[in-house]
Amino acid sequence: MADLLIKCMAVLTMDGEGDIIHNGEIAVRDDLIYHVGPSGSTPGDFSPERVLDYPRMVAMPGFINCHTHAAMTLFRGYADDMPLMQWLNEKIWPLEAQLTREDIYQGTLLCCAEMIRGGTTTFADMYFDMGQVARAADESGMRAVLCRGMIGAGPGGESALAESVEFIKQWHGYAGGRITAMFGPHAPYTCPPDFLKKVVAAAKEMGVGIHIHLAETNDEIKEINDKYGKTPIALMEEVGLFELPVLAAHCVHLNDSDIFILARHQVGIAHNPQSNMKLASGVAPVTRLLQAGALVGLGTDGASSNNNVDMLEEMRAAALLQKLHTGDASALPAYQALHMATVGGALALGMQEQIGRLVSGLKADIVLMDMHKPHLYPLFDIYAQIVYAAVSSDVHTVIIDGRVVMENHCVLTLDEDVIMAEAQRCAELLVQRSKVNDNG
Amino acid sequence: MADLLIKCMAVLTMDGEGDIIHNGEIAVRDDLIYHVGPSGSTPGDFSPERVLDYPRMVAMPGFINCHTHAAMTLFRGYADDMPLMQWLNEKIWPLEAQLTREDIYQGTLLCCAEMIRGGTTTFADMYFDMGQVARAADESGMRAVLCRGMIGAGPGGESALAESVEFIKQWHGYAGGRITAMFGPHAPYTCPPDFLKKVVAAAKEMGVGIHIHLAETNDEIKEINDKYGKTPIALMEEVGLFELPVLAAHCVHLNDSDIFILARHQVGIAHNPQSNMKLASGVAPVTRLLQAGALVGLGTDGASSNNNVDMLEEMRAAALLQKLHTGDASALPAYQALHMATVGGALALGMQEQIGRLVSGLKADIVLMDMHKPHLYPLFDIYAQIVYAAVSSDVHTVIIDGRVVMENHCVLTLDEDVIMAEAQRCAELLVQRSKVNDNG
Repeated sequence: MADLLIKCMAVLTMDGEGDIIHNGEIAVRDDLIYHVGPSGSTPGDFSPERVLDYPRMVAMPGFINCHTHAAMTLFRGYADDMPLMQWLNEKIWPLEAQLTREDIYQGTLLCCAEMIRGGTTTFADMYFDMGQVARAADESGMRAVLCRGMIGAGPGGESALAESVEFIKQWHGYAGGRITAMFGPHAPYTCPPDFLKKVVAAAKEMGVGIHIHLAETNDEIKEINDKYGKTPIALMEEVGLFELPVLAAHCVHLNDSDIFILARHQVGIAHNPQSNMKLASGVAPVTRLLQAGALVGLGTDGASSNNNVDMLEEMRAAALLQKLHTGDASALPAYQALHMATVGGALALGMQEQIGRLVSGLKADIVLMDMHKPHLYPLFDIYAQIVYAAVSSDVHTVIIDGRVVMENHCVLTLDEDVIMAEAQRCAELLVQRSKVNDNG
Repeated sequence: MADLLIKCMAVLTMDGEGDIIHNGEIAVRDDLIYHVGPSGSTPGDFSPERVLDYPRMVAMPGFINCHTHAAMTLFRGYADDMPLMQWLNEKIWPLEAQLTREDIYQGTLLCCAEMIRGGTTTFADMYFDMGQVARAADESGMRAVLCRGMIGAGPGGESALAESVEFIKQWHGYAGGRITAMFGPHAPYTCPPDFLKKVVAAAKEMGVGIHIHLAETNDEIKEINDKYGKTPIALMEEVGLFELPVLAAHCVHLNDSDIFILARHQVGIAHNPQSNMKLASGVAPVTRLLQAGALVGLGTDGASSNNNVDMLEEMRAAALLQKLHTGDASALPAYQALHMATVGGALALGMQEQIGRLVSGLKADIVLMDMHKPHLYPLFDIYAQIVYAAVSSDVHTVIIDGRVVMENHCVLTLDEDVIMAEAQRCAELLVQRSKVNDNG
């Protein structure tokens, strides 16, 4: 790839508070950040083939969406404003039963287009037919951490585990390392301890992490307590899950001991505030988790419970929700919210030496935000402006792994018109099949 | 003005649930909606001079921002993540003490540009030097309901009241009726009952309504209870405020009796969910208010506590927050949230026979949303798509009072580049003056 020099109003390195380089520049060589510093500070041996000179823009690390189900963008707006179990039983599961490989591929492409437009450069995904998700992520140019979601209870558990092993063998480290694979046991209430122990053994053997839903709803807490006499977090510790790198989505309902366990094992936590609000699940104790030293990243969850994959929205929701929840307007301030959406996500994924900050040697995953908009004036505080006032369409240019995947709002890696048309076609056919099946 | 015909994918009339006209058209004559119906249904005597033919767009009523302080966009990002009283004492009030008429004019222009871009066509504002606010609103082409905020306690009360009377005389009904004026007693804790009674008498005499902050924080509830032995709502009923049309901002902390009083008097309520979250004020019982038959509109509050004036964001926050607050994912569904941002706002302002719906005879305040974006595919449910997935930049074209004020994302009434530069200049000088004053 061509050497690239980015010059802009400011670089947010996210490498420690206050680390704003005003009138800064970033030199990119191949997939890596070669240099970051004030204008003119790039070493003389760097002669870029392209210069992106944007004096009204701010460069920052790409957002890391720590928990989503990308293919579920196909269900966007299909079922809203319903209680969780009715939503799943009557709407989501009947559709999922009819999903084809093509649907999953098209749904993921659509999601990738939206994520790139909103400045997301890495996403962690749990679904099925993950080869299709990997294929779409690869084509989009995005960085992805993928796992095949496994329901461990019942006869499908073993085959799902075998599929996961095959998926990991095929895709882990693929696309020049842009694709990483994990095991994906769905949740404690769908995966009994014996199954989870097998997953732990397999993950240890293959040297990969685990992505799981944990402590999302009060119903889950009750069910696990009724069955095992402890919290989901305590149960997971007992089965040895936390001996591995774990990405735990939600973590809404936690007691003090749970928080201590999550922090001690440095479990990665994917906080999904809008999904938790929309499904009336509750508020994760993010402020307390951070105080305890836990690793908290931010996720959108699937578009069917959000209904977009917009990390700027999610970041603002996270900050406002903690202020409300704690009764303290100073809780989760702007810098910490932006940190959670970038560095926090990298830490939660165990990828802090590759992504999440703009420093030399890390992957060149960079977002340029256009600050020349009425809603971003006047400019006093860049962090507050981005967290509290910016919207996804302020993302102007996106670079992933050193490659410009969007420039001046034009996605270069994907044909969006085709993707939108295919998504509509697939979604309509899917609903038709689900209704035919329902009547038969 | 030229007769105008708008043709689009769908018209959301907001005149009763399910009132979507697919493949619809809207005929606009002068400032009014002449006809709304399916494609081709406009009477033959209507020969438009312009046709806006947008098959991928949805037409809906413009948003009604029921509570803001437009000029405070100048303070955007100046002070965040602080407890309310510290924020006011140390940051906001010292700046406000230094505000010039020019600042208020420029801040309001900036806010109007942002509001138009986000599809807001009417705003209700409380501030001071309201002539400047009216001047900016008039130039922008927006519809505005304006009041001079009055602190009734202390020596300034009488002069503020006199100023209000002058402002109302000069501006009420101005700009072809686009500007409406009200009295603006700030709040029960800044305006004692005797002052409020004078305001009630003046408002009755002049035939205008009253805009006030009510029951925003627990501190207010405590202060009023300590002083008068009742809630702010009960106190307002006692002083006779509710004998007039009232627009009450916030209404966060309410008991059952308060809700009954607000509903019985058909008080207009401006719900500001993001400001209430950001300042950790609490959650207004919107679901209960609506069940009781109260009139609830939506507001952004000022940009200094939000930090934008984005009604799409506000609508989504309102819906998600009620679901979380009530523990019921079906609370405040998409249609109801959109209703609140349009019809609800019109009802809260007492303007339901002029704005808030797209039906013939009402003012032509129309927004076209561009649905051809990755984050708005696939399309199952237009209401859910707009409330849960759309962002402000999806607003493509805005018509106010029959005049196209934004077309294809280009604001036609204002010079945004000049406004952004002036806002930055004014804001920097303002902070300088405030610091000089602080040191002196």
